[in-house]
Amino acid sequence: MDIRMANRMRELKASEIREILKLTQRPGMISLAGGLPAAELFPVERVAEVTQTILEEEGHRVLQYSPTEGDPRLRTLIADRMRERWGIDAGPDDILITTGSQQGLDLSGKLFLDPGDAVLCESPTYLGAINAFKAYEPEFIEVDTDDEGMIIEDLERRIAEHPRIRLAYVIPDFQNPTGRTWSLKRRQAFLDVMARHAIPVVEDNPYGELRFEGEPLPPLKALDEHGLVIFLGTFSKVFCPGLRIAWLAAAPALREKYVMAKQGADLHSSSLGQRQIAVYLDRFDLDADIEILRETYRRRREVMLKTMAATFPPGIRYTRPQGGLFLWVELPEGTNAREVLAASLEQGVAFVPGEPFYPNGGHENTLRLNFSAMPEDRIEEGIRRLGHVLTGFLAERAAADHAPTVAASVNG
Amino acid sequence: MDIRMANRMRELKASEIREILKLTQRPGMISLAGGLPAAELFPVERVAEVTQTILEEEGHRVLQYSPTEGDPRLRTLIADRMRERWGIDAGPDDILITTGSQQGLDLSGKLFLDPGDAVLCESPTYLGAINAFKAYEPEFIEVDTDDEGMIIEDLERRIAEHPRIRLAYVIPDFQNPTGRTWSLKRRQAFLDVMARHAIPVVEDNPYGELRFEGEPLPPLKALDEHGLVIFLGTFSKVFCPGLRIAWLAAAPALREKYVMAKQGADLHSSSLGQRQIAVYLDRFDLDADIEILRETYRRRREVMLKTMAATFPPGIRYTRPQGGLFLWVELPEGTNAREVLAASLEQGVAFVPGEPFYPNGGHENTLRLNFSAMPEDRIEEGIRRLGHVLTGFLAERAAADHAPTVAASVNG
Repeated sequence: MDIRMANRMRELKASEIREILKLTQRPGMISLAGGLPAAELFPVERVAEVTQTILEEEGHRVLQYSPTEGDPRLRTLIADRMRERWGIDAGPDDILITTGSQQGLDLSGKLFLDPGDAVLCESPTYLGAINAFKAYEPEFIEVDTDDEGMIIEDLERRIAEHPRIRLAYVIPDFQNPTGRTWSLKRRQAFLDVMARHAIPVVEDNPYGELRFEGEPLPPLKALDEHGLVIFLGTFSKVFCPGLRIAWLAAAPALREKYVMAKQGADLHSSSLGQRQIAVYLDRFDLDADIEILRETYRRRREVMLKTMAATFPPGIRYTRPQGGLFLWVELPEGTNAREVLAASLEQGVAFVPGEPFYPNGGHENTLRLNFSAMPEDRIEEGIRRLGHVLTGFLAERAAADHAPTVAASVNG
Repeated sequence: MDIRMANRMRELKASEIREILKLTQRPGMISLAGGLPAAELFPVERVAEVTQTILEEEGHRVLQYSPTEGDPRLRTLIADRMRERWGIDAGPDDILITTGSQQGLDLSGKLFLDPGDAVLCESPTYLGAINAFKAYEPEFIEVDTDDEGMIIEDLERRIAEHPRIRLAYVIPDFQNPTGRTWSLKRRQAFLDVMARHAIPVVEDNPYGELRFEGEPLPPLKALDEHGLVIFLGTFSKVFCPGLRIAWLAAAPALREKYVMAKQGADLHSSSLGQRQIAVYLDRFDLDADIEILRETYRRRREVMLKTMAATFPPGIRYTRPQGGLFLWVELPEGTNAREVLAASLEQGVAFVPGEPFYPNGGHENTLRLNFSAMPEDRIEEGIRRLGHVLTGFLAERAAADHAPTVAASVNG
């Protein structure tokens, strides 16, 4: 029977990444595709210990319904961490626990976007944010970026062109997918522009604590003097994603709207999951865990960059991130990363083509590589094979580029 | 700074129930207000045992990201239960695990509703569904109900009046808030009407397994020959709500749309929570747990009804549910349940006024009582006090009704 769907469903597509990730389940596949943290580093035994205590001491409570806002102790611990780590002046009542940062994105679309409104974002930007916002039928205004973040002149120009910009979405630290980090100057200039136009800003910060080198920079939320920034934080990348516990921090009036929207979306996040993280933070040293993650990911990134330098053919540009999970590759114009992927999968190596990270499409010559999920030897082997595939592709292209010239001279 | 919100946010309000529930935290309060299952019956030790096994045997996997569709073993177990218990012909690939049934409601609004579309629902209906759908800015078309379910003549009339009905939302078993159950004849007649108009139906079934007396009736989903019914099931009322694990079952093409919408909403539900329930179902006898719940709630309902019969003043009508968590009270016309609540709270007894369950308002003389969350002696004491409050109210009203007549005769 033919059932009529809402207009927004025309825009929703299955995530290309998740389809590729299904291929990566094949035995022996080297996956540089997903954004998975290193599962072998999850503190499983300590989580088991904490869980045992919780179920013994407050089992009936953690299996029951709990407040939409989230566990009070967890919100206090998060507020403390935000203050100490990032200089963000937020208390427990500014925080809402969410079911993954993905929910923070969905709720942000719900709060701010009517059909035909516009979202400002980096070009490229996080695919999951594009998908979340698409359900609210906005236009996406991509702002050009360079190694320091959004280019302010382009930002100003685009705002001048579009009267209905209702939200900005940015990832200033170790961006997904590029791995780039915004300079302090750009952060300040960006916030000035946002304040002038009263545009709320969703600052997505899943990787901020995973810095391998260089000095930490203050998040936008710490620089925000107008209550415009909604900060999204998560335990998915510094602890584990399977519990689906993340948070957002926003000015009280905004946070209240988020609480209402979350009531309608899932009532509250897992009561047990919230307590597991709160008790873990009380009992163990998450910072020591993070230090291990940092060191591991730094080494994996090193191996990736070193092998890329040794095996990639000339004419390929890529970022050198100071933290996070990803780096970004630009192949020569005219090379199609999806075709490269098809050849690469045959060699047992998966990555994600870059085009889906551009909400308005294009940039078929880009791709994203993840360095958090595989051990060093697999990364080295995977990049070697990818380098081989790319060498073949570019050689073929060079031959094709010359062919017409040769043909012309023969014919002429 | 004044930030522009989306139009839908004008409609969203904090749930009145959640505000009342905050009052019920006061020590000594007898709460007949919420919809909480009896926490003292949660199988905490068995959950602890199961959790220990999972973290030992597959700890790294259950703390990692997992597929949007949900754990395959859990989906198989759910499909089996749906077949055995309810005669629903669904396989694991028809099922999507959701973060509570509340998420099933939110995603249903996302799939089917554009602003100005209409949702058909029972009058009254579940407050949380009203809140979830409101985010998609529909009109609510309330259909009159009696003790057998929606009145088909009223249903037909309302459909004839409204060209943009895109979704029907119903709770045929032990409805929230009334406790009523639809007859088989009404179920069939309702589905015929829905099929004639190609209206998809969300069948919310959180309480179906909590029948105390009478014969089980087939869910709409088991009677559906056109793939129109989306069945929402949950472990919140038969196991525990704190893990936030529920499911929906829908025809493959529809289920695929729900998967896409869930990707954008929270990627997936708690990996650990899903495994906890799957392993529990594999290892323990959930049906034996449910039998205890049934018997407990049956006794609590009995005490509530018996005390109501003994202490409520005449002129008050109420339902006598065959299962579930709630019963529904209609005070004499002109009595305001919110005023009764204010007096009742002073006596340490909380309940929920009925008006919020009517999406278009009115019916201030109704209220909902919950009998699952309090032990029998507290229910008896709470209803006694409420009976006293009601007796006072109705006596005052009677005096007020007579007063003008007396005054008139004195003056005349």
